[in-house]
Amino acid sequence: MKDFSIIVFDGFETLDAMGPAEIIGVMPDRFHLQFCSQSGGLIRSDQNIRVDTEPFSAIRPGGVLLIPGGYGTRKLMDDPKYLELLKVLSQDAGLVLTVCTGSALFAKTGLLDGRAATSNKLLFSLAQAAGPDVLWRRQARWVQDGKYYTSSGVTAGMDMTLGFVSDTVGRAAARKVAHALEYLWNEDRDSDPFAN
Amino acid sequence: MKDFSIIVFDGFETLDAMGPAEIIGVMPDRFHLQFCSQSGGLIRSDQNIRVDTEPFSAIRPGGVLLIPGGYGTRKLMDDPKYLELLKVLSQDAGLVLTVCTGSALFAKTGLLDGRAATSNKLLFSLAQAAGPDVLWRRQARWVQDGKYYTSSGVTAGMDMTLGFVSDTVGRAAARKVAHALEYLWNEDRDSDPFAN
Repeated sequence: MKDFSIIVFDGFETLDAMGPAEIIGVMPDRFHLQFCSQSGGLIRSDQNIRVDTEPFSAIRPGGVLLIPGGYGTRKLMDDPKYLELLKVLSQDAGLVLTVCTGSALFAKTGLLDGRAATSNKLLFSLAQAAGPDVLWRRQARWVQDGKYYTSSGVTAGMDMTLGFVSDTVGRAAARKVAHALEYLWNEDRDSDPFAN
Repeated sequence: MKDFSIIVFDGFETLDAMGPAEIIGVMPDRFHLQFCSQSGGLIRSDQNIRVDTEPFSAIRPGGVLLIPGGYGTRKLMDDPKYLELLKVLSQDAGLVLTVCTGSALFAKTGLLDGRAATSNKLLFSLAQAAGPDVLWRRQARWVQDGKYYTSSGVTAGMDMTLGFVSDTVGRAAARKVAHALEYLWNEDRDSDPFAN
């Protein structure tokens, strides 16, 4: 049973978090899913949905972290204290997954420096500016480098999470979940219909 | 500005609600999105995510309702008082959208009788039993009949919601949202890769 902690903040993109949450949440025998924020309590998404969270102190070392994107990342990218918290949590984590502009936010910790990564294609320059030393890939649905998984925009996070399930639990399990959700999984991480 | 109220209950399927919520929520100039439950307050999804809600009394007539599925529908299908509330809200609504086993729950109100509708394919017999007089379609990603839109399982709800946006706002707007979410929209409601 592995902890899977989704880190949210005011202005997170709803589906960046909720797509992966659905996939992980239908495997309660494999993963313990929790939503976490710096201080816990209600957090409002950029789409005005309020979700209840545990504080960062509930995140145990060795688990999986997922960092969504959303307009709220802009403010946090300029918050050294938050970035330091994110860095420590990520260093302690077994794996870190990022979605959309969550990749840009995470790049600000420096942990992606020298690593291959991707972000959403409509705001790719934001990621490049946030992490000038990251080896950004313009054409990728998701990228895995060491313990870091990064994905392109919003629903690409679902493809990446299924890829993570495939890597850690097995391809058959990932396909079974996709089928149960009637989701046409874009299984090929290098096939990126939104690359520009 | 149209009200778009997503009705949730304990044990709702996270993505049935959150996929459509993302799509509607990125158009705040067109829609006022709210999550509602019978008494308001925190509601727990079947994947253990707690979302804050308004009470049913916050739902004004003439808006759009969306009813997700999930394991929690089973209990409500045998709750005549809840079904009556759902029926009244739906009669007062301009449009009603249902996702996955939300179609089966909604069928219990009788409002789908004699109408074409669909539900998820892994539990199709549940829908048939819930609404023996509904004209269930075995092969459809989503179906629209009068003011009722019904969809197949989980992510089919996103395709349906984009179809609803296409019908009410315009096809270009729906495609623009899908692109922003890097979502490969299954635009053809009759193409159902999960039909069996």
